Amino acid sequence: MFAETEEKSFDIKLFEKTTHNPSFASLTNHFRTTNGLKDYCIPVNSYFPPAHIMDELFRRLPYALKYYPSSNESIADNIALFSGVTNPNWIVAGNGSTEIISWLNSIFIKESIFVPVPSFGRWVEEPMGLGVDVKTMPHSDDMLQKITAESYVAEVLASKARNAVICNPNNPTGTLFSREEILWILERLTHLDNIIIDESFIDFSAENPPSVKNDVANFNNVWVLKSLGKNLGLHGVRMGYAISCEANIQRMKKHLPYWNVNGITEMLLSLIKTEQKAYDESRLKNINDAIYLSECVEQIREFTVFPTHSNFIFVKLSDEFDGEELRNRMLQDHACLIRNCGNKLGASKQYFRIAARPVEDIHYLVAALKDVLAGMKVE
Amino acid sequence: MFAETEEKSFDIKLFEKTTHNPSFASLTNHFRTTNGLKDYCIPVNSYFPPAHIMDELFRRLPYALKYYPSSNESIADNIALFSGVTNPNWIVAGNGSTEIISWLNSIFIKESIFVPVPSFGRWVEEPMGLGVDVKTMPHSDDMLQKITAESYVAEVLASKARNAVICNPNNPTGTLFSREEILWILERLTHLDNIIIDESFIDFSAENPPSVKNDVANFNNVWVLKSLGKNLGLHGVRMGYAISCEANIQRMKKHLPYWNVNGITEMLLSLIKTEQKAYDESRLKNINDAIYLSECVEQIREFTVFPTHSNFIFVKLSDEFDGEELRNRMLQDHACLIRNCGNKLGASKQYFRIAARPVEDIHYLVAALKDVLAGMKVE
Repeated sequence: MFAETEEKSFDIKLFEKTTHNPSFASLTNHFRTTNGLKDYCIPVNSYFPPAHIMDELFRRLPYALKYYPSSNESIADNIALFSGVTNPNWIVAGNGSTEIISWLNSIFIKESIFVPVPSFGRWVEEPMGLGVDVKTMPHSDDMLQKITAESYVAEVLASKARNAVICNPNNPTGTLFSREEILWILERLTHLDNIIIDESFIDFSAENPPSVKNDVANFNNVWVLKSLGKNLGLHGVRMGYAISCEANIQRMKKHLPYWNVNGITEMLLSLIKTEQKAYDESRLKNINDAIYLSECVEQIREFTVFPTHSNFIFVKLSDEFDGEELRNRMLQDHACLIRNCGNKLGASKQYFRIAARPVEDIHYLVAALKDVLAGMKVE
Repeated sequence: MFAETEEKSFDIKLFEKTTHNPSFASLTNHFRTTNGLKDYCIPVNSYFPPAHIMDELFRRLPYALKYYPSSNESIADNIALFSGVTNPNWIVAGNGSTEIISWLNSIFIKESIFVPVPSFGRWVEEPMGLGVDVKTMPHSDDMLQKITAESYVAEVLASKARNAVICNPNNPTGTLFSREEILWILERLTHLDNIIIDESFIDFSAENPPSVKNDVANFNNVWVLKSLGKNLGLHGVRMGYAISCEANIQRMKKHLPYWNVNGITEMLLSLIKTEQKAYDESRLKNINDAIYLSECVEQIREFTVFPTHSNFIFVKLSDEFDGEELRNRMLQDHACLIRNCGNKLGASKQYFRIAARPVEDIHYLVAALKDVLAGMKVE
């Protein structure tokens, strides 16, 4: 869409400013100089929305930009339809799942929170910044990053934490609990103030994802959290939601800003609410891409690839090589942005999260990885 | 853009569901049936953004939809440039000003808040819903809705409230304090926990608006709040910010969601940051429209028009007529949406806020008002 400049340089210093990766916008000067940057950092659905939805969205966009969005309730109705949640009163819509996370961290979570690490940064840094005691348990190479339901419950109890998080599948490790395991855990932790099952990536975990979306209202201390932006392929617009029993949802709504979901998101939700079939097809394609990506990276002997149940893979670089240097060379020599986990508690700069992409992008990535590793060996 | 249906009917019941007006989207079935609906409810800038900005926004939109927005700091830099705030570290960007209001109400404001009424609903209903004691003072017909600085301070002190709000200009009354009056008030209320000057409409108050945006960091208990969406003519995208001393801004940022400002808003801010001249011209046109609207409605003897310092007027309908009926007839017979203030504390259904529009829309409105009033007289 934009003329790409010849210049192939990216500002590596941007990585120092945040425990998240620098944004694509900041790396490309608001998309003025995209430099062919290939993003393997954000695990976004590559096959959604369908072209006819994008056409319709653009056709109506002048209205969405110029008018206030509707109430949270009317947006929740569309989410329930699309996501197969039985009762829209169990849903609160958020300006991305991070908005809900922030309200949970600021209002609902007191004293202490238990989080297996590495995890999504907002479950670690935000509570720490707010003075909440963050208690952790590690994913380990020995267990191929897998945590058992029994060990999870035992560690939560031992930690005496008042709140607990399970990302299912976990970001960035890609490990997954079954629905039965999650329910088994929940039944053992009914004394906690809040348990959050972050299902942001669950649509890419299996053909039949082990979601507890329609179980959660049976508990008075459980929330399911879901990011929608990446799932729908449009994470710039900010979309997410939480599911819980009606009392929790009502309490959350007292705090949430009115008009917290923007007009473009509302428009998009109204357009896709009957597109489940196209969405299901897109999910499966992403799952296949992740499998293929795993197989390809497994061929590179410098990487250990852990089993994944998501639309990204979690890999470890051999200690002969420096992970940060690999990240920088991938960006500067091949314009490939991959997620180095050096700034994640419980990981190190030898670990990477790599998002699944269509086959041709996987081939490009693998060739680039091989080229960079060969260069690092020679020096 | 859309084929308008012949049907001219609007669902009046939507007014019962909210203390705000129903959204344009809900009244038009997500813009499928706009029915020529003319919006005099939302006071939005009619002359911004310029066409070349909209063209550029649409050109880059596919990127903004698909990538994460940047950090709050980089967005604050653009806001500071555009808004003439001396130090970007005094700014926190919000998902609309209502996001900042919600965080202030939930985290910073304890016990009690003082609000002259009628006011913006979020300053009344949200704290009430959160159990905060809302103490009010009335704007009155006798004083032409004007409150003096002396009476404001006296009433705040008498109320013993721990927090206070001044909307400047006030929404919906359109009344304004000078910069000197605001500073005089602030110096007398340094013992309060928080004072919020909501300057959301101040750009339409005068050629040189009496903003305290660059004074506020001298106080440790004062916030300036600013909505940007309506000012920039694109309130669907959600944009706003707060200004305060660095310590307050840092404390606020610990709570605010990461990526709270969506990618389209970020893109828009990067495009308009050097468009102050076009923006100033657009402001003045809106001010002229409001003056002309006042003059025209003053000609209708059934209305009392209060002096305004904003891009809307505040009017009272003679008691011979029912305000709610007028609102409904305006919508059903003429597709004109005007803001009846019957659901606002401190007003009644005889009061209306009418947004300024370009001259031809004012003529349409005035003819419709005269027609409806003539019809109500006959019956």
